[in-house]
Amino acid sequence: MTDAKDGIFSQAEADTVERVIRSRRDVRGNRFVSDPVPDSMLEKIFEAAMWAPSVGYSQPWRFITVHNQDTKRKVAESFATENQKASALFTDDKQALYQQLKLEGIKEAPVNLAVYYCPSEQPVLGQTSMPDMGRFSVVCAIENMWLMARALNIGVGWVSILDPTKVSEALQAPDHWELIGYLCLGYTNGFLSEPELEKLGWDKRRQRHQVWFEENAGNKKPPE
Amino acid sequence: MTDAKDGIFSQAEADTVERVIRSRRDVRGNRFVSDPVPDSMLEKIFEAAMWAPSVGYSQPWRFITVHNQDTKRKVAESFATENQKASALFTDDKQALYQQLKLEGIKEAPVNLAVYYCPSEQPVLGQTSMPDMGRFSVVCAIENMWLMARALNIGVGWVSILDPTKVSEALQAPDHWELIGYLCLGYTNGFLSEPELEKLGWDKRRQRHQVWFEENAGNKKPPE
Repeated sequence: MTDAKDGIFSQAEADTVERVIRSRRDVRGNRFVSDPVPDSMLEKIFEAAMWAPSVGYSQPWRFITVHNQDTKRKVAESFATENQKASALFTDDKQALYQQLKLEGIKEAPVNLAVYYCPSEQPVLGQTSMPDMGRFSVVCAIENMWLMARALNIGVGWVSILDPTKVSEALQAPDHWELIGYLCLGYTNGFLSEPELEKLGWDKRRQRHQVWFEENAGNKKPPE
Repeated sequence: MTDAKDGIFSQAEADTVERVIRSRRDVRGNRFVSDPVPDSMLEKIFEAAMWAPSVGYSQPWRFITVHNQDTKRKVAESFATENQKASALFTDDKQALYQQLKLEGIKEAPVNLAVYYCPSEQPVLGQTSMPDMGRFSVVCAIENMWLMARALNIGVGWVSILDPTKVSEALQAPDHWELIGYLCLGYTNGFLSEPELEKLGWDKRRQRHQVWFEENAGNKKPPE
């Protein structure tokens, strides 16, 4: 193996990556179309996951694809239960808006993908001081898939209003796997140019000064 | 705002994203060079973070850039302490190899970046059933930055062998922020063509059948 010293990307290639990152959206059931996703495309998305960074090269990700309507129905039932509970936590205008939102595409998306973390029984290099690092590696794999899918013009939606136990029962996942994300994948009738929750006024885009701070090196705390 | 129905990427653009994903590496101190990273490049990397997916559009990420040598020294001290503890957890050949590994580039990288999760005091859409979703959003921002940096030919290393409390003290971060990742950024003397831990024999690349399963729809469990 040699170093890839020629692995230098051009400005045009960097611009492409920037555009893909900016045009990635969370896609829900009102946007998916029923065209099947070819296996060759799922392969590309899967490969992107396998090249994600993982702590200590532990590659702790596990994936279960879901096509079966009966399995999807069980997952959608968990969504309905959890979403009803969630709705009650919001008040007034927020609750009214919450109830109008389409927050998943479990049945509409031709492919669902459950992404799990499989904990190691041995110590993992890099995970000894920060135990969540294995879970975070799985999230990196999800983001890689999301961006690869977008570059392939395939939409992804991450559904998190679920009871992980119910999902794992429906999928018959091994007991020691932890659900990290449940994704819906499919072609779409178009990608929104802005995040849907921004468009609908749920929340605003953060400005740089709200989230990005220089170190203060002993002087003062950054604003909270 | 209109839908970006023209936001269709070409096969060549998808290939670029695939190559960036495959050539992203964890860069350590034996690879960084001291050339400064221009602010215009840090801006691009920062923008990539801001376009990451976040649960309920909560954008719970906070960033602290570190340039000061004294701050880096304090963080490096935490690494040294935690790394010594970690080394003792591995045995025999693994321990010998562990002790030879260069696992961080805190002082060598011209820029360090601490990435935090700022929890919300209000319920967050999408986080009501899976409380880690906010942390996972921050990880998506990290992976976006990592890929954007790679496309700009800038290396990133994620240092996780740290005591988050010590790091936050050194940076004087607000008490309620949680450290998710500590990144080292800089130009490099070349990107490896394979992950370093694979090259050095620490672990092997997982094969598809080890991590990717079709649903069993009530039949049997996937292999563990």
